[in-house]
Amino acid sequence: MSGSTFGRVFRLTTYGESHGAGLGGVVDGCPAGIALTEAMIQAELDRRRPGQGGPAATARKEPDRVRLLSGVFEGRTTGTPVAFHVENTDQRSRDYGDIMHVYRPGHADVTYDAKYGRRDYRGGGRSSGRETLSRVAGGAVAQALLAECGITVNAFTVELGGVPARPEDPAGAQDRPFFAPEEDIVAQWDALVRNVKGRGDTVGGIVQVEAYGVPAGLGEPVFDRLDARLACALMSVGAVKGVEIGAGFAAARLTGSSNNDAMTARGYAGNNAGGILGGISSGQTVVARAAVKPIPSVAQEQHTVDDSGREVILRVGGRHDISAIPRIVPVLKAMTALTLADMLLMQRRMTAVRA
Amino acid sequence: MSGSTFGRVFRLTTYGESHGAGLGGVVDGCPAGIALTEAMIQAELDRRRPGQGGPAATARKEPDRVRLLSGVFEGRTTGTPVAFHVENTDQRSRDYGDIMHVYRPGHADVTYDAKYGRRDYRGGGRSSGRETLSRVAGGAVAQALLAECGITVNAFTVELGGVPARPEDPAGAQDRPFFAPEEDIVAQWDALVRNVKGRGDTVGGIVQVEAYGVPAGLGEPVFDRLDARLACALMSVGAVKGVEIGAGFAAARLTGSSNNDAMTARGYAGNNAGGILGGISSGQTVVARAAVKPIPSVAQEQHTVDDSGREVILRVGGRHDISAIPRIVPVLKAMTALTLADMLLMQRRMTAVRA
Amino acid sequence: MSGSTFGRVFRLTTYGESHGAGLGGVVDGCPAGIALTEAMIQAELDRRRPGQGGPAATARKEPDRVRLLSGVFEGRTTGTPVAFHVENTDQRSRDYGDIMHVYRPGHADVTYDAKYGRRDYRGGGRSSGRETLSRVAGGAVAQALLAECGITVNAFTVELGGVPARPEDPAGAQDRPFFAPEEDIVAQWDALVRNVKGRGDTVGGIVQVEAYGVPAGLGEPVFDRLDARLACALMSVGAVKGVEIGAGFAAARLTGSSNNDAMTARGYAGNNAGGILGGISSGQTVVARAAVKPIPSVAQEQHTVDDSGREVILRVGGRHDISAIPRIVPVLKAMTALTLADMLLMQRRMTAVRA
Amino acid sequence: MSGSTFGRVFRLTTYGESHGAGLGGVVDGCPAGIALTEAMIQAELDRRRPGQGGPAATARKEPDRVRLLSGVFEGRTTGTPVAFHVENTDQRSRDYGDIMHVYRPGHADVTYDAKYGRRDYRGGGRSSGRETLSRVAGGAVAQALLAECGITVNAFTVELGGVPARPEDPAGAQDRPFFAPEEDIVAQWDALVRNVKGRGDTVGGIVQVEAYGVPAGLGEPVFDRLDARLACALMSVGAVKGVEIGAGFAAARLTGSSNNDAMTARGYAGNNAGGILGGISSGQTVVARAAVKPIPSVAQEQHTVDDSGREVILRVGGRHDISAIPRIVPVLKAMTALTLADMLLMQRRMTAVRA
Repeated sequence: MSGSTFGRVFRLTTYGESHGAGLGGVVDGCPAGIALTEAMIQAELDRRRPGQGGPAATARKEPDRVRLLSGVFEGRTTGTPVAFHVENTDQRSRDYGDIMHVYRPGHADVTYDAKYGRRDYRGGGRSSGRETLSRVAGGAVAQALLAECGITVNAFTVELGGVPARPEDPAGAQDRPFFAPEEDIVAQWDALVRNVKGRGDTVGGIVQVEAYGVPAGLGEPVFDRLDARLACALMSVGAVKGVEIGAGFAAARLTGSSNNDAMTARGYAGNNAGGILGGISSGQTVVARAAVKPIPSVAQEQHTVDDSGREVILRVGGRHDISAIPRIVPVLKAMTALTLADMLLMQRRMTAVRA
Repeated sequence: MSGSTFGRVFRLTTYGESHGAGLGGVVDGCPAGIALTEAMIQAELDRRRPGQGGPAATARKEPDRVRLLSGVFEGRTTGTPVAFHVENTDQRSRDYGDIMHVYRPGHADVTYDAKYGRRDYRGGGRSSGRETLSRVAGGAVAQALLAECGITVNAFTVELGGVPARPEDPAGAQDRPFFAPEEDIVAQWDALVRNVKGRGDTVGGIVQVEAYGVPAGLGEPVFDRLDARLACALMSVGAVKGVEIGAGFAAARLTGSSNNDAMTARGYAGNNAGGILGGISSGQTVVARAAVKPIPSVAQEQHTVDDSGREVILRVGGRHDISAIPRIVPVLKAMTALTLADMLLMQRRMTAVRA
Repeated sequence: MSGSTFGRVFRLTTYGESHGAGLGGVVDGCPAGIALTEAMIQAELDRRRPGQGGPAATARKEPDRVRLLSGVFEGRTTGTPVAFHVENTDQRSRDYGDIMHVYRPGHADVTYDAKYGRRDYRGGGRSSGRETLSRVAGGAVAQALLAECGITVNAFTVELGGVPARPEDPAGAQDRPFFAPEEDIVAQWDALVRNVKGRGDTVGGIVQVEAYGVPAGLGEPVFDRLDARLACALMSVGAVKGVEIGAGFAAARLTGSSNNDAMTARGYAGNNAGGILGGISSGQTVVARAAVKPIPSVAQEQHTVDDSGREVILRVGGRHDISAIPRIVPVLKAMTALTLADMLLMQRRMTAVRA
Repeated sequence: MSGSTFGRVFRLTTYGESHGAGLGGVVDGCPAGIALTEAMIQAELDRRRPGQGGPAATARKEPDRVRLLSGVFEGRTTGTPVAFHVENTDQRSRDYGDIMHVYRPGHADVTYDAKYGRRDYRGGGRSSGRETLSRVAGGAVAQALLAECGITVNAFTVELGGVPARPEDPAGAQDRPFFAPEEDIVAQWDALVRNVKGRGDTVGGIVQVEAYGVPAGLGEPVFDRLDARLACALMSVGAVKGVEIGAGFAAARLTGSSNNDAMTARGYAGNNAGGILGGISSGQTVVARAAVKPIPSVAQEQHTVDDSGREVILRVGGRHDISAIPRIVPVLKAMTALTLADMLLMQRRMTAVRA
């Protein structure tokens, strides 16, 4: 494995498995002088904890206390690497022994074996959703940097199990179950999740990320465009199977005259572009959506094979979420923040001489 | 600008503007011994030429002859960088003088100015669709490598202007107008494009890429997953606003039990995963789709501003395509090939010791 | 700061300050299946501990217990990132308070302030020699990989305080004070160091690294040549001011006919090239030397300035080594191993298709 | 081969073989707005031409006209990639046919075969000294950037064939034969070279590079230190076998009290550090030296083997230089400029937020 670093300038390198000693990461390239505390990172980690989404959440209790190991002195970054670690405390390896040789459908068991020839089968190992802890912590560092530049990132659920929400109050989403952008949808989604759970099944959904205050000029054509880097960032999260920017797939069904965002002296007349033109931020709100597949660990019997190729009937035990939503929402927010922090520093260096 | 390199191991670096001396690129990291000729690259470039899509194509005549400059000796790669160049011949700068100070809606004019403080306004400069020439040429080198490993890449149009095709014959798409995956849709799409052209408007569509013979094990968790890298690759192409893998956005509306691809002794029972599990190829066909927005250069009057912020009415002159499809199809094929070549070499090095 | 990652394929990212919570690192890109234990890493760290060099060593007691955090399962690497951490236990910040505002000559105090605008003044912070702990631990992982490929790395002192050793027994150097390549020089160097210490001064020296069993073909022309990467690796260690390969600076005074290593049917007739031709390993022993400057923390009064630019007389307190040798020797060995591991994996991927 | 890119932010990618179509490169990451012309690049290439060093130069006539292909509009960089190409005109493949299967001692023939399994044997192919053309052209772009920031780079010969020069007038070196830093040494070196040529032999020497106006703060600890990157840059040039910074190897024989550069209110009292402390520029002149081995193509009979391992007596024909000096001097100057341009942009981005 060698893809554990994200970013070219503001770079997060992560490590850790679900049932190893712990998980963590190193942020290299964060400028000096940024206000950063353990509490700021912990706050983001807490958003990822079970309980944000009622029954959709797993019953596991994961304290997930982060420890800041380097790079901060007297409350501000020093310009040296910012390292953090979260100890694994609730491991319960016994829950997973029965799948040591069986490939769970929709999971990475089979491909990890194909790639590495061996795998840590305990709870998914590196391919477990717990891996995203390091992303959220790294994203908190990115958000600390962005905050000093007037950029904020938001993420909320716009659809769950096929039921869309009206994005009436995205600003309030961070404090609402499911990170819902409206109040009324919560009860409806809660009922939907209970119903699915009763059938031993799981659901997916769609998450929207938005970034406010992004200055025009971020993104490095032609391959490291802001939209390309953001697509990479969001698609790198386990359950994500699709990413779109602005009008996205709907733009493929519009004509040019209706899709173009006219420009006026007061600004853009629309935002079908999602705040990105030619791969470079335009100064509008950056808007992207990620399609989240249903969690593959259903409580029903499934046909699969073991690592000898023999067919078996599998019924996954253990405690599992009904949906990656809402726990994936802070992860996608973190990935958006990491992308913007990287692109921001890329751009600053480029303009330095010009100014 | 600093994002002109794609790939970590098999790396393409490109250069060139639509009205400069020419465009080209350097492929570094291609193994020695791969059969490669100028004709192989030219063949891919010819697929990108106008004329593949009837009226959807621009009237410009662009010979686009590629010249191979290095890295090949006696018909095979030597392991040294493979460089190529395409001279610009049909420049006609006079067509573009009227937009020197005006920002075309939906184009990168405004963001390039914001980012760089100055821009080559002739025909879009670096942000022109001509930039993709270098991608297609680089992709031809990637395909030469993949061919020796039994991997082939295909790309075809599955929807144009909202009208979907039935993917009955993807294998024949390379020789069909619009790179259509069925014969009957061609006339329908042709009529649609003529109609749109008559209204001075443009359309978008959806392109599907498929890769056959991809061995299990490609993709580097956690950030350089195959799906993440592929999303980055496809989204980095100018007109693309969305990318999905396998079932994609539709998976967000399925339950886990229906989305999971069951495994049997004879292989997978479905391919909702698009050939990728946990970011690693599973051995199935890799499937992705890209949403292509309508070309912003419509032949209608548009409201916009100039670089002093004054409102103006713009009517874009010059010769323009009605849709980025079909010319974008070989570009997306090339980006898929570049992604797979990179991931293939990444993986080979990792398994070398283990084997 | 953003230079905390070494390597392109086998990559070590480090973090930590001398008086922070601890130091550690993440090795990403290590293939699966390599035998690796905490004890193997600890053994290399122990070589770096005080006591290897008699009076040349600091009196500080540093247990430096490493903890392996991820990437190893049942005694072998899994292909996922290998993370490790060493807790700081003996911090004694009080020793360093007096230099909070004073720039120590020959140290990085002044340049860190210039670069970052602020610094962790406690014991040098990130610029402390303790930073090399992470290199040695990472190098141990590299050596585990190299060992499985039949490559071993050695490092020994060939000159101390201007007094050269005869390299009679390099193989025994790892178990000898000063990592000396001969027995007789030890007493002489010991006397020299005691004498220098008595004068409140410090000395430098020259360290030689050798790598045995390196296959022909490692090194990536034209910029990532093996000699270039090795020079970068060795020069990146704090006290190193010069690097040479094979005959090195002496080659600049030879004629071509005497410097060329003739080739015979039984192999090379000499090794002025240091095992590297055209930046690529030749199959001979790889040989390099690093010039180590004397430690700048002398126990004499020195003229310097404080961070307001005022001249002050400084007398550095605290416990300090008389020479970076021998503690730097395992660090240079580690950097050599990291370079070779990276180049080895780079090469394996390139030849994979050809073979 | 995959090491053809230098730099992380200001990045040069090169291509080309001595007897292929030509050589060139792409500079990606150069900020917009830098004054740059073909003539500026040509001027640097002309310094590398034969004739700078009397008899030390080859008799070949190489016009080496550079063509600027992209990235410059109306005399200034646009921020897009700057590509350039030099056509090979005087190829004379016939001179080299006799060494198709013979490994020249001291050359890369044997290692290229080992690495790639095949090679372009005509004049060394990629391993030819002609490869440095692309470095010099890329270095000219770097110098254009540095010039706008008040940084200039110089390079001159401090020793040839064991005969040192007194660095009395480094400023005049660019216009003097051998790039000599004093007038009187020229005749002496000229006689030395004639004498060596008469014996059919070759000589090496030592080149010093200096950079003036470098601001304090460049260099990225801990691995991408300025000295480490500079060592990598200089050592990556074909004939270089050693690199030292400031006092270099001499520092290994000094005591700490004599090696330390005392600081006063008026600045540093010396420059043993070579302008770099802790890997970060101090604001003093950056000073480095490179040891250049004698050219291996001597006009004497040499013992070697062919690619079947059979011993043969080789007498290299063709036209060859007597020393890599002076032609290597502008190459080392270029590598220094490329290093500083990269480190400068790295640093600017890091301080952006702080300022």
